[in-house]
Amino acid sequence: MLPNQKVKSLVGKVVRIEMKGEESDLVGKLESVDDYMNVYMSNAMEYKNGEKVRNLGNIVLRGNNIILIQPFEE
Amino acid sequence: MLPNQKVKSLVGKVVRIEMKGEESDLVGKLESVDDYMNVYMSNAMEYKNGEKVRNLGNIVLRGNNIILIQPFEE
Amino acid sequence: MLPNQKVKSLVGKVVRIEMKGEESDLVGKLESVDDYMNVYMSNAMEYKNGEKVRNLGNIVLRGNNIILIQPFEE
Amino acid sequence: MLPNQKVKSLVGKVVRIEMKGEESDLVGKLESVDDYMNVYMSNAMEYKNGEKVRNLGNIVLRGNNIILIQPFEE
Amino acid sequence: MLPNQKVKSLVGKVVRIEMKGEESDLVGKLESVDDYMNVYMSNAMEYKNGEKVRNLGNIVLRGNNIILIQPFEE
Amino acid sequence: MLPNQKVKSLVGKVVRIEMKGEESDLVGKLESVDDYMNVYMSNAMEYKNGEKVRNLGNIVLRGNNIILIQPFEE
Repeated sequence: MLPNQKVKSLVGKVVRIEMKGEESDLVGKLESVDDYMNVYMSNAMEYKNGEKVRNLGNIVLRGNNIILIQPFEE
Repeated sequence: MLPNQKVKSLVGKVVRIEMKGEESDLVGKLESVDDYMNVYMSNAMEYKNGEKVRNLGNIVLRGNNIILIQPFEE
Repeated sequence: MLPNQKVKSLVGKVVRIEMKGEESDLVGKLESVDDYMNVYMSNAMEYKNGEKVRNLGNIVLRGNNIILIQPFEE
Repeated sequence: MLPNQKVKSLVGKVVRIEMKGEESDLVGKLESVDDYMNVYMSNAMEYKNGEKVRNLGNIVLRGNNIILIQPFEE
Repeated sequence: MLPNQKVKSLVGKVVRIEMKGEESDLVGKLESVDDYMNVYMSNAMEYKNGEKVRNLGNIVLRGNNIILIQPFEE
Repeated sequence: MLPNQKVKSLVGKVVRIEMKGEESDLVGKLESVDDYMNVYMSNAMEYKNGEKVRNLGNIVLRGNNIILIQPFEE
């Protein structure tokens, strides 16, 4: 499975995303992703060192600033 | 809804934007956005730790340096 | 007005530009801008915390490293 | 062998990847890689100063934020 | 004059270049530049706070990591 | 000679490469380079302040994260 296909297979699931130059991670439901790995996430929460920091709700992330995407396992 | 469509649905509304490598956020009315997520914002204000720092007025942001866009809820 | 059109409407005027990873801003006359937001600026000055630091004269800025462009108001 | 071909020759093997702006490395099995060097890795582990920090499992990495890829030798 | 044309007009002259995330500047003769602003420079010298640090000779710089190019005036 | 041609002329030779956001340089034999300046290097060594830190062997570097490439002179 190619990287883009792997990410698309996660749509509808809860994912964890690390952004470039950010200390906290984003965890939320992956609503959609495009070919540039731009991401639309709902119920997003900010996590820091494994602790929930705050609710962000609906967010859009710019793909080129994503470091890592993975399925979220609490 | 794809990420770009989600952002376009926010045109005319107040949004919060995090830029790469910046400590403060930008909050303002989303006037327009293009396919690269370049943004034109009016009545922009700089926010730091949830506090308004200064008024910036009309600004243009380069899409590739955007980390996150979301509807602003005070 | 799209973001690129907004920037083009500023040609001939004095603008303030924030670059990625730089503490100081650049203020000068916007001579030209292309579709990648590369910028040619004349009479450029470096500003830090609102204070003029030094004159740079004619400079070219790489568009992908621009964070923000706005009309300059002293 | 071109750089992309070299990376493709590592599919199925354990690789070490350094990401931009991250202190820790990622080590895991290279499942797939595309033309942008986006990477899908299984059994990924985070390493810091040569020590294993935690298991990450399946991860996708954005190619433009990769600094270095190499075969992993323990 | 467009930004790229301005840079091309500097070929054969001594220029100063600021790179992203670097504390020192590069000063040298601009041998060539392409459409991505990749630069080939000869007799390059590293400058820090206006002081020459070391000679680098012939160097190639990746355009997307360039912050600023300008004619060098000692 | 254009920047890309200059880099291609270094294939088969020992080069020094500075990567974005990294304190150490990479020195090794340039095996190949593509149009994006992605690099495949053999016998790569990490250098810090002119001192060899460790051997890395075969590595692939992502072109957009390269700051500078030059012939290596010990």
